[in-house]
Amino acid sequence: MIRSLQPGDRAEWQRLYQGYQAFYGFHDRPAEFYDKAFARLMSDDPRDFHGLVRQDGARLLGLVHYVFHPNLWRDEGVCYLQDLFTDAEARGRGVARGLIEAVYAAADAAGVPTVYWLTAEDNYAGRMLYDRVGKRSPFLRYNRP
Amino acid sequence: MIRSLQPGDRAEWQRLYQGYQAFYGFHDRPAEFYDKAFARLMSDDPRDFHGLVRQDGARLLGLVHYVFHPNLWRDEGVCYLQDLFTDAEARGRGVARGLIEAVYAAADAAGVPTVYWLTAEDNYAGRMLYDRVGKRSPFLRYNRP
Amino acid sequence: MIRSLQPGDRAEWQRLYQGYQAFYGFHDRPAEFYDKAFARLMSDDPRDFHGLVRQDGARLLGLVHYVFHPNLWRDEGVCYLQDLFTDAEARGRGVARGLIEAVYAAADAAGVPTVYWLTAEDNYAGRMLYDRVGKRSPFLRYNRP
Amino acid sequence: MIRSLQPGDRAEWQRLYQGYQAFYGFHDRPAEFYDKAFARLMSDDPRDFHGLVRQDGARLLGLVHYVFHPNLWRDEGVCYLQDLFTDAEARGRGVARGLIEAVYAAADAAGVPTVYWLTAEDNYAGRMLYDRVGKRSPFLRYNRP
Repeated sequence: MIRSLQPGDRAEWQRLYQGYQAFYGFHDRPAEFYDKAFARLMSDDPRDFHGLVRQDGARLLGLVHYVFHPNLWRDEGVCYLQDLFTDAEARGRGVARGLIEAVYAAADAAGVPTVYWLTAEDNYAGRMLYDRVGKRSPFLRYNRP
Repeated sequence: MIRSLQPGDRAEWQRLYQGYQAFYGFHDRPAEFYDKAFARLMSDDPRDFHGLVRQDGARLLGLVHYVFHPNLWRDEGVCYLQDLFTDAEARGRGVARGLIEAVYAAADAAGVPTVYWLTAEDNYAGRMLYDRVGKRSPFLRYNRP
Repeated sequence: MIRSLQPGDRAEWQRLYQGYQAFYGFHDRPAEFYDKAFARLMSDDPRDFHGLVRQDGARLLGLVHYVFHPNLWRDEGVCYLQDLFTDAEARGRGVARGLIEAVYAAADAAGVPTVYWLTAEDNYAGRMLYDRVGKRSPFLRYNRP
Repeated sequence: MIRSLQPGDRAEWQRLYQGYQAFYGFHDRPAEFYDKAFARLMSDDPRDFHGLVRQDGARLLGLVHYVFHPNLWRDEGVCYLQDLFTDAEARGRGVARGLIEAVYAAADAAGVPTVYWLTAEDNYAGRMLYDRVGKRSPFLRYNRP
């Protein structure tokens, strides 16, 4: 079952989000990092982040975090899918695909058809899925140094 | 001089923004597209877009549009530089570099050190500058189809 | 066991090479295509292609084809690994890695330390291996139209 | 005038080829490097490198080096354009385009329609030309570490 993140998910959510942060090399985020993120996901601010999870019994198998933000080309704004993670033990069962599609549905419900995300060029396992459920653009991200 | 976009800039601003939209193949945006964009840039909403321009006498030589939006990894959020354009007749004079650096300064003033933008992989002229003033990340953009 | 391709491998070799050609969308190569390729692989010309295979009992599990060609920067030339294929049923068992390493050894024996190959940017499964056994360069291939 | 490299071009050729090597960061190639490369370009071996130059009075404005090498998919082989350089003072005058097209013609004369080259992803100035005179493939180069 895919549903919104709830206050009672805190422990399972943190287990997954720590796995995700570790994937990007952040093994030692302080407790405050997770406290703040969870509080924001639980807030009622429609302009802050939202979370969806895939639940299987008492376990969470995956999570996705997204936010709506302004875009000057589109009055309704766009939906940015920032975080997506599947428990290592639940890979290959469509968890990530289901979560992405649930974000598409949430974006439709909000009247925001444009959904995008960023991924590392060498995130091969991710891109195998993203090429099926999304469309690669020719756009690269540049950062202020 | 680089300064904030002002109500009196409407005609010059539109000339530039039409050039920018044409660069991306949008030659026939309706008048409403420009009306809405300019109105948003003129609003006081700190969460909507801001504009900076490079002025040279009665002319505007370039424009940049940016917005602050939430990021779950950073409490202070991030700054997205969406649009950047230099008048074709003013190329090679540091207009775009100056505008990017002015966004950096505005982001610093807002307490948001992270600034990013997206560019097409084959925007070679742009990337010659971006590699100097920014840092290419390994991240690609995927879109909902 | 990895060894040189032999005349008696013709049937098994063709089964694999047809699988490889199909991977690139060439499902209907004429018989002559395979006749010529095999004849070249069997020739004694040191400047033409060489083949190595991974044998497991009566089966071939994988093949690799390589050639030495001149390079103006290096007197000894370079080694181009053009074709690499593992039987679908033998994936995940180190067949491709072993074949690449066997080409490295053959290149060393020929006094040609430089070995390279080309792969599609979205050959994710291949690149998972290539990033471990090789090093991605920043070079892209352009073709005459 | 574009023509084959000749023995009398040695000094001018070396001036250009040193500029090319410097572009790739090789500022101190020993004299033997240039001796050998020129000797190979002057040899009659059809399997070794060939050179073409753009002459303007007593000056050479540009050079290109190419070689034919075997390809297992094509009996006639392929043509690899390894080196291309235009004198800094002669940029923007079509020198590189003319040299590439002269390689196309030489390849046609040799019965080898396939011509390819490799270029760094961030060789923006080169790619502005290559996108017009060639076609970018999705292939990346991997090297033995």
